[in-house]
Amino acid sequence: MSIVVSGGAGFIGTNLVRALLAEGKSVHVLDNLCRGSLKNLAEFTSPQFHFHEVELSDQGAVTTLLGQIVAEGPVEELWHLAANSDIPAGIVDPGVDLKDTFLTTYCLVNAMRAHGIKRLFFASTSAIYGDLGETVLTEDVGPLFPISNYGAMKLASEAFLSAAAESHLEQVFLFRFPNVIGVPATHGVLLDFARKLKKDPSRLEVLGNGTQQKGYLHVSDLIDAMLHLKRTVTGKFSVHNIGAVDTGVTVRHIAEGMVRVAAPQAKLEFGTSNRGWVGDVPKFQYSVKKLLATGWRPVMNSFQAMERATREVAAQEGLV
Amino acid sequence: MSIVVSGGAGFIGTNLVRALLAEGKSVHVLDNLCRGSLKNLAEFTSPQFHFHEVELSDQGAVTTLLGQIVAEGPVEELWHLAANSDIPAGIVDPGVDLKDTFLTTYCLVNAMRAHGIKRLFFASTSAIYGDLGETVLTEDVGPLFPISNYGAMKLASEAFLSAAAESHLEQVFLFRFPNVIGVPATHGVLLDFARKLKKDPSRLEVLGNGTQQKGYLHVSDLIDAMLHLKRTVTGKFSVHNIGAVDTGVTVRHIAEGMVRVAAPQAKLEFGTSNRGWVGDVPKFQYSVKKLLATGWRPVMNSFQAMERATREVAAQEGLV
Repeated sequence: MSIVVSGGAGFIGTNLVRALLAEGKSVHVLDNLCRGSLKNLAEFTSPQFHFHEVELSDQGAVTTLLGQIVAEGPVEELWHLAANSDIPAGIVDPGVDLKDTFLTTYCLVNAMRAHGIKRLFFASTSAIYGDLGETVLTEDVGPLFPISNYGAMKLASEAFLSAAAESHLEQVFLFRFPNVIGVPATHGVLLDFARKLKKDPSRLEVLGNGTQQKGYLHVSDLIDAMLHLKRTVTGKFSVHNIGAVDTGVTVRHIAEGMVRVAAPQAKLEFGTSNRGWVGDVPKFQYSVKKLLATGWRPVMNSFQAMERATREVAAQEGLV
Repeated sequence: MSIVVSGGAGFIGTNLVRALLAEGKSVHVLDNLCRGSLKNLAEFTSPQFHFHEVELSDQGAVTTLLGQIVAEGPVEELWHLAANSDIPAGIVDPGVDLKDTFLTTYCLVNAMRAHGIKRLFFASTSAIYGDLGETVLTEDVGPLFPISNYGAMKLASEAFLSAAAESHLEQVFLFRFPNVIGVPATHGVLLDFARKLKKDPSRLEVLGNGTQQKGYLHVSDLIDAMLHLKRTVTGKFSVHNIGAVDTGVTVRHIAEGMVRVAAPQAKLEFGTSNRGWVGDVPKFQYSVKKLLATGWRPVMNSFQAMERATREVAAQEGLV
């Protein structure tokens, strides 16, 4: 029995693959290496590890590949993590999220149907909730009007999975993340800050006025939460928010932290808007009550996660 | 100033085009004639009426065509009605709803962006709500887990429009319909029954046990409601359920009505399930409070709408 991980060469994927291999699983990674990279996979030398470069939005390629994997032995589950992870890029060109965020889901699910793979874990996002103002974001809240193409194509993916659970999938787990931090960082605010400081250690320009506040989860806690839910949730179709328990940290705090670690002389320069870019939600109340009710607790709060990830990303970029 | 109607050769489209021409508007119909037909458009002889055959899921073709229309004069609004309308067909082959229900939306919205068309009316559906059991279906209800690919790809369309409203569209109207009846019928329970009786007037086989109950709106009331909302709603992004005020009629009632009109000797034969097909929701509580609060009222209730549409569809099929 093996496990397939799409997007397994990316940020969260790499961390998931490490955890699954540690459990003794045979793991097949599917990745187009667009944002993921082989460098991220270099540590996996076990014969239980298999890598396949494939364009996941190409139905023929995906169906053929899953057929070859199934021919070698049964696949017990598929983790679909592949997606565009650059929200601003998807605002400029909707084709990015159509192809990498939605069509990857569409093609993988059709290939699962073709080869009788019945259990799916999907990395969704808090971005499906859009901007609901002061509303507490529980899993059952509505209406769902995402404000980025990334959020829209993740919601489209959820909807397609929901219909697939009614027709051919036997168990579907939806996990909705807010911002996850750690390494290997491929995108996100910490990497942006680190690269700006690498280029010019004298100043750090921050999009927006720095007051945007979000909960952050360290990737090690995220992986732990997903594997906990896999062990404890029995329903056919489940959805869980996964995030920090606290109300989060501000962009100003993040910027100050990176400057302290990587370039103590840098001058911080803020913008005036309370949004960093179109599609960025300034502040939200993310409920993880359902997750906590299963008995799970994160090791790190947002501040601790940010402190650790800041050092990790600075090290990755050669700044410390 | 002209108006573009996608899917304008189809069931609802034909009725909308008639109403818009009656208001003195110049109307451009875009249709791939897959389910719509030129026969439905034969009545439109006004020089204000323009027909364009185009594959709406072909980005290049749609962008070029909208460019040509805009070059002749400004487009004040676009009504996007084109979609797959055969829910069971989309269960068998998800490609049908991907292409005809979602990619049509995707391509039209991108073409609107390219040519600066800012106002969009979208025909969504009650199917986005999935099966929420006894929950009253207001516009703000969650979670949204559709159980058909049709519902999933309509929800995907709504999500993409929501993101587009954040970035380039100036006004978006979402209308969520339950079952709409009338002529020219291209699909649906009345047409199925009429065609079965035409083939064999001695019996009528009904999928399911006949207890499924839904609200039905006559297409003339639907068009009236949409044009009323266009006149009265001012928000940038609005969503309204449009449906009958009553709790609806059963499949048994519909079958008995069609038999009475078209083949009084036919014997009714029912199945045993309370669902007609995968993706069919047995019973639901559809709220139109928000619509009624705008002052609109339907002319016909579900029973009256069904009685009129039964005669219309029977006549269309040459049964009376």
